[in-house]
Amino acid sequence: MMQKRKIKIFDTTLRDGTQGEQISLSAEDKLRIAQRLDEFGIHYIEGGWPGSNPKDMLFFQRADQSQFKHSKIVAFGSTRHARYCAEEDPNLRALLEANTPAISIFGKSWVLHVERVLKITPEENLSLIEDSIRFLKSRGKEVIFDAEHYFDGYKDSSEYALQTLLAAETAGADVLVLCDTRGGTITSDLAQIVRETKEKTTVPLGIHAHNDSGLAVANTLIAVEEGCEHIQGTINGYGERCGNANLCSVIPNLQIKYDYQCVPEKNLPQLTTLSNFVAEIANVSQPLNLPFVGKSAFAHKGGIHVNAVMKDARTYEHILPEKVGNSQRVLISDLSGRSNVIYKADELNIDLKKHKEKVPKIVNQLKNLENDGYQFEAAEGSFELLVKKLIGEQRDFFELKGFRVTVEKDESGAPRSEATIRLKVNGITEHTAAEGNGPVNALDKALRKALIKFFPEIKKMHLSDYKVRVLNVKDGTGAKVRVLIDSSADRLLWSTVGVSENIIEASWQALTDSISYYLMQLKNSNK
Amino acid sequence: MMQKRKIKIFDTTLRDGTQGEQISLSAEDKLRIAQRLDEFGIHYIEGGWPGSNPKDMLFFQRADQSQFKHSKIVAFGSTRHARYCAEEDPNLRALLEANTPAISIFGKSWVLHVERVLKITPEENLSLIEDSIRFLKSRGKEVIFDAEHYFDGYKDSSEYALQTLLAAETAGADVLVLCDTRGGTITSDLAQIVRETKEKTTVPLGIHAHNDSGLAVANTLIAVEEGCEHIQGTINGYGERCGNANLCSVIPNLQIKYDYQCVPEKNLPQLTTLSNFVAEIANVSQPLNLPFVGKSAFAHKGGIHVNAVMKDARTYEHILPEKVGNSQRVLISDLSGRSNVIYKADELNIDLKKHKEKVPKIVNQLKNLENDGYQFEAAEGSFELLVKKLIGEQRDFFELKGFRVTVEKDESGAPRSEATIRLKVNGITEHTAAEGNGPVNALDKALRKALIKFFPEIKKMHLSDYKVRVLNVKDGTGAKVRVLIDSSADRLLWSTVGVSENIIEASWQALTDSISYYLMQLKNSNK
Repeated sequence: MMQKRKIKIFDTTLRDGTQGEQISLSAEDKLRIAQRLDEFGIHYIEGGWPGSNPKDMLFFQRADQSQFKHSKIVAFGSTRHARYCAEEDPNLRALLEANTPAISIFGKSWVLHVERVLKITPEENLSLIEDSIRFLKSRGKEVIFDAEHYFDGYKDSSEYALQTLLAAETAGADVLVLCDTRGGTITSDLAQIVRETKEKTTVPLGIHAHNDSGLAVANTLIAVEEGCEHIQGTINGYGERCGNANLCSVIPNLQIKYDYQCVPEKNLPQLTTLSNFVAEIANVSQPLNLPFVGKSAFAHKGGIHVNAVMKDARTYEHILPEKVGNSQRVLISDLSGRSNVIYKADELNIDLKKHKEKVPKIVNQLKNLENDGYQFEAAEGSFELLVKKLIGEQRDFFELKGFRVTVEKDESGAPRSEATIRLKVNGITEHTAAEGNGPVNALDKALRKALIKFFPEIKKMHLSDYKVRVLNVKDGTGAKVRVLIDSSADRLLWSTVGVSENIIEASWQALTDSISYYLMQLKNSNK
Repeated sequence: MMQKRKIKIFDTTLRDGTQGEQISLSAEDKLRIAQRLDEFGIHYIEGGWPGSNPKDMLFFQRADQSQFKHSKIVAFGSTRHARYCAEEDPNLRALLEANTPAISIFGKSWVLHVERVLKITPEENLSLIEDSIRFLKSRGKEVIFDAEHYFDGYKDSSEYALQTLLAAETAGADVLVLCDTRGGTITSDLAQIVRETKEKTTVPLGIHAHNDSGLAVANTLIAVEEGCEHIQGTINGYGERCGNANLCSVIPNLQIKYDYQCVPEKNLPQLTTLSNFVAEIANVSQPLNLPFVGKSAFAHKGGIHVNAVMKDARTYEHILPEKVGNSQRVLISDLSGRSNVIYKADELNIDLKKHKEKVPKIVNQLKNLENDGYQFEAAEGSFELLVKKLIGEQRDFFELKGFRVTVEKDESGAPRSEATIRLKVNGITEHTAAEGNGPVNALDKALRKALIKFFPEIKKMHLSDYKVRVLNVKDGTGAKVRVLIDSSADRLLWSTVGVSENIIEASWQALTDSISYYLMQLKNSNK
C-alpha cells in the first residue's frame, strides 16, 4: 500500500489552455473559472502572461481585488531578454506588476532552442535563468521554474539540460518543472529521465506534459511515481495543438487509484460539474467519451453489458461514478435489447410491467426512428414522451393547424424574421404572430404566445441550448438535420430532438417536444 | 537502438467501436471501412458479433464476397453457453457460419464475473474456454482468445486469471489477448502484470486496452515493451464508454517513436485521411486535438511559437506532420500577432510585402470579427476573401437587392420551403425563385439559379458540409449562431463562415463567401 502523498496541482487552463484552437477566454471568463478552481481546491492558478496582452493584465488586476481561499494566482513569463539586465527587463517588470504571490518563469533547456531561436550561447542562457530567478526571489516571490523542452533537451544533451535546472536551483527556484513541451516523449523514456533528474537535484520536481503522442496523462502519473510532487495541466486537457495533461483525468487517477491527495476529498464529486462549467465558459462542446467526467464515461449500450451492470455495476465500471460526480447511464440504440428499454423506462419512473406486451413495439419504433436519424441517447425528454404516447399514458397538449415563417432581407442589410401560427387547444383556436432574431426564434416566440394563455406555466421554461447536426453531409444545404434542444425550468433540465431535411421542421419537433415534456412533468407533479 | 519488431494490428472499430455512444454503422458502412483498413495494411478486422444481430451477419456475407489484400476478417463471439456442448452452441455455430478465416472468442478471467454474471463455478468456466477453442480449432480456424477483465481478474486472483489463459493455450489458441475491459488499470500495474504473464505462457500475447482512465494508448505501448505482439484498438479510439486504444495514436507511436513495423511504411501517410474517413462514415465530428491526425495536431497559435516554428519546425513539432499525412497550420486569433497573419497570407500566396501598411488594419479587423463570433481558424476561404478585399485585390461578384425565404406547414404535415431572390451582376438584374428541402437549401438553390447564367462554372461546386454552432447558448433560439460551410469542386476544398442571430443570414454570408471564393480562384487560375 502506498502512502498518502500530497501532490500540488498547478492549473494552466487560463494560460496554456487558451493556446488551444477555438479556446478564447475574456478576463471576465478567466475570473469566473479561477473562482471555481479555487472552490475545487486547486493549489496554483496560472492566469496568463501579463507582458503579452492587455486582457491578461486586466485579469491580474481583477484577481488582485478578489479573495481566493485555496489557490495562489500565478503570473507567467519568460526569463530576461539577453539585451536587458533582470532589473530592467520589461517582461520581468510586467510579471512583478501583476502582483501575484507566485511567478512561473520559463527558460530554455534544449541547446537547439538556445542556438536557433534565442541565438545566444548556452552559457548566456544559463545566466539568463539564474539572473531572472534571483531577481524575482529578491522581490519575495515564490518562483516556479518551467524547464521548457526538458525531455527533448535531455535526450540531446543530458548534461546541458541538467545545468539549466541547477542554475535555477542555485538562484533559489522553489520548484523545477520538467516540461515535455512538444509532447513527443514516450512514457518509459520519460520515467527514466525523471528518475535520473531526481537523483541530481534537491528542489521539488514538477511535470508539465503535452498530449501530442496521446500520453500526457500516463506521463504525468509515471512522473509522480518517479517523485514529481507538482503537476501542471488544464481542465479538459485544453491547450496548444493536442492539449495539456487533462487534470480531470490526472486528479481522479491520483486520488482514487493511487490514494494520493490532490484536492480535499470532499471536493472530488465537483469534478464533473467543473469540467462542464469550463467547457461552457469556453463555449466548446464536451467530447462524450472524456474519462471520468464525460457523459459516456459510465454509459452502457450493448445488451449483455447492460444486463451485467444491472447485476453488479463493478462488472463494467472501474470506479463508482458518484466519486467524481458522474452517473451511470443506459443507452438506447439499435444494439439495445429489452434490458435497455426497461432500465431506461424504470429510471424515468415509467412502469412498463403493466405494458409488457407493448415493449417489442416500443423497441421497434425506437429502432425505426434511429434509422431515420433520431437519437434518443441525448434526448431523454423526447424518449419519455414517445414511450408514454405508445403506452397510451400521454396525449397531445395542442393541435397544429399551420404555421408560416418568413425571413426577408433587402439592400439595407439586416434581415427580418416573422412567424405566424394557428393552433387549437381544447377546441379553441388561437391565431397569432411574432417577430424574432431569426426564423426559429420567431417560431418559438409565436408558439409560446399562442400557448401561454392556456398554459401560463410555460413562462418559467427556457431553452438553454440549441444544437444542429447535419446528418447526410454529402447533400450540402439539402441534407437532413438533427436539432437537439436543451431546456430548463427551475432545477429541471431536459433535452428533446427533431429530425428533418428542413431545419424549421426539425426545430419545430424539438420545440414542441420540449414544451410538451414540461407540461407533462407539471401535470404529473400536480397529481 | 531497438530492433524492427513486427506488431500485428487488430482493428475492432466495426465491433467494439460501435459500442460507443453515437456510433452506429450499417453493413454497407462497415464494408467501406473494412476496405480502407485493408488498403492501409491492418492485419485483422473484427467485423461484429454474428450471433447478436442480423446487420452483423449481413456484413460477414458481404465481406465473404469481397477481396481483401492484407486483412483477415474476424468474427467475434463468446465461449459456449454452460447449457450447450460446443458443437451445439448457437453462438459458436453462428461464428462458423460467418465463414471468416479467424475467430475472436472472449472468455471470463475474473472470478467476480464467473460467479455473479455467468453464475457457474470457476472450474466450469475453464472447460467452457477449453471446449470452445478446441472446437473452433478443429474446424480449422485461427483462434484469438480475448481474456475479458484479465487485469482486474489478475489483481483479484492471479492464479485463476492465469488458469484461464492456460486453458486457452492447451486448447490451441493462437493468441492470448489480455483485456483491460473496464479501462481502470494504471500503466505501471499493467506493465508488471504483462511481464509476469509473459513468463508463464508460451503463446503470443495481445493487448486490448480501454480508455476509462485516459491511459489506453500508454498501456498499449507499455504492453508491447513488455512483449505483447498483437494490438487491439479502434480508429479514433471509438468504443464503449471512454473508448478503446486509439490506433491512430498507437500505430504512429510504435512505428515512428519505437521504429517497430505495424503497417507498410509507405502507407503511414494515409493515417490522417483514414481517421477523417471513418469519422465521416460514422458521422461524428472529429475532435480538433486528436494526437497525430487532428486538425490542431500541428497548429500554432501563440505569436512566439509561430515565430520559432518559422525558424525551425522541430522547436514545437515532435514529428514531421507529413509522416502521418497531416500538415502544419498557423492559427489566426486574438493571441495572433503580425507573424501569424503574414505566415497565413504567405501560405495562401497573398503577397503582403506590397501592403505592409495595411497589416495592422487587417489584424485589427480580424480581432473585431473574432470578437463578434467569427472564426477564421476553420474558414480559410473567408479569411482569404477578407484579406484580399482589405488590400483592394478583390471586389464583389454580385450585388444583392433582396431575398425572401418562406417555410409553411399545415395540417397535412410536410413543410414547404421557398426562396425568392433579386440580385444584380454587371448592371443586369436577375429576379428568380426556387423551392428546397429546407429554407437554407431553397436560398442556396435560388442564389445558384440567379448566378448560373453569369457564372456557369458554379455548376461544378458542391457544399460538402454545413455546420451550425450556437454561440451564446443562454439565449436559446434567439442566440447568435455561427455557420461553417465546407465546399468542394474537383480537388479544391474550402471553408467559409457566417455569423448572425438569424440562421438564414449567417448561412447567407457563408454561402456567398463560398461562391465568391470559388469564382476568385477560377479568375486567378485563368490569369
